[in-house]
Amino acid sequence: MNKIEHIGIAVKDLDKSNQLFASLFGETHYKIEEVASEGVKTSFFKTGPNKIELLEATKPDSPIAKFIEKKGEGIHHIAFAVEDIYSEIKRLKEEGFTVLNETPKEGADNKLVAFLHPKTTNSVLIELCQEKPKN
Amino acid sequence: MNKIEHIGIAVKDLDKSNQLFASLFGETHYKIEEVASEGVKTSFFKTGPNKIELLEATKPDSPIAKFIEKKGEGIHHIAFAVEDIYSEIKRLKEEGFTVLNETPKEGADNKLVAFLHPKTTNSVLIELCQEKPKN
Repeated sequence: MNKIEHIGIAVKDLDKSNQLFASLFGETHYKIEEVASEGVKTSFFKTGPNKIELLEATKPDSPIAKFIEKKGEGIHHIAFAVEDIYSEIKRLKEEGFTVLNETPKEGADNKLVAFLHPKTTNSVLIELCQEKPKN
Repeated sequence: MNKIEHIGIAVKDLDKSNQLFASLFGETHYKIEEVASEGVKTSFFKTGPNKIELLEATKPDSPIAKFIEKKGEGIHHIAFAVEDIYSEIKRLKEEGFTVLNETPKEGADNKLVAFLHPKTTNSVLIELCQEKPKN
């Protein structure tokens, strides 16, 4: 597992939070992307070699809407960059972690992603993400 | 504000969590450090250019003990590296953020640190940290 690829932060109002994080970082977000399958609209900020991803729910039953309902706004997940997501999933299963997506799914920002169940990771939702190979 | 210096994760049992995160990263922690003034024992893992800091309370009234009592184990804060913590504090105050430590304090890992109040940062506890100048 390599660097922190990004930290995902659940927010209620993406426009408002984009302004807030722009003030914080002294730099605006560099892209907005909607992932319809996840019911989420995201924006990305660069912080050196890492990214911050803000996540706003686009429908009431999306995972982000449920997270905010239960816990309020705040840090939702940490994503680590991996070189080979399939071998990392295999390794982590063997180590006893519960992998929520045995087959990686498509995430924002041209990534293949898989999540580990927080029950096996000290209540931290962890995402593995691999840059999708170019066709 | 530069890279994510580290992510702080509150844990109940440092030894147990050190083992868990070693399995996760495929690499053990590289140091343990107690910060008596904060009532906390920490361990550090390297993940590329970033670090993960596990935090265990050493006394029942420490901020980490209170956090776990209220929210359970999990992500506690994000720390961003800054080059000049004094000028960042000044800038962020002018931007309207509430800085909890107007005078930076000593943190783990040879750092000067200051926190921003989560009420002004989308419920994310943010730490600024600067490597302490060598004498």
